[in-house]
Amino acid sequence: MSGKINHKIELDNPKVATTDTIEPGQKVVYCRCWKSATFPKCDGAHNKHNQETGDNVGPLIVNVPK
Amino acid sequence: MSGKINHKIELDNPKVATTDTIEPGQKVVYCRCWKSATFPKCDGAHNKHNQETGDNVGPLIVNVPK
Ligand code: FES
Ligand code: FES
Repeated sequence: MSGKINHKIELDNPKVATTDTIEPGQKVVYCRCWKSATFPKCDGAHNKHNQETGDNVGPLIVNVPK
Repeated sequence: MSGKINHKIELDNPKVATTDTIEPGQKVVYCRCWKSATFPKCDGAHNKHNQETGDNVGPLIVNVPK
């Protein structure tokens, strides 16, 4: 039932962990579908992925108050 | 080649977008493998997923300086 979920991002890297630093007052939308052209940020590619596969994934939005 | 990547989280939700608010001085580790028992946070389940499927996924770490 479950297989690889990443077919695109840093395929030569044994584990793609990403660290991002953001500032107070920022809101950042991060990709969790592994298909964004702007990875680690979301570019909306999850919508096509969901349509094509019947999946229901979407981004993580991180808010940091000022 | 590509199929569903979520077999566990909020399967009745048409699109799982998550908003999280974090404070200056925090560092949070978020899941991008859709298998964490503490979703949207990472609990290390990506390691078993990678071993079982040959995948190379890992978490997103968000840092906010003080
Ligand atoms: S493009 Fe991957 S979650 Fe939006
Ligand atoms: S448990 Fe999913 S990325 Fe770590």
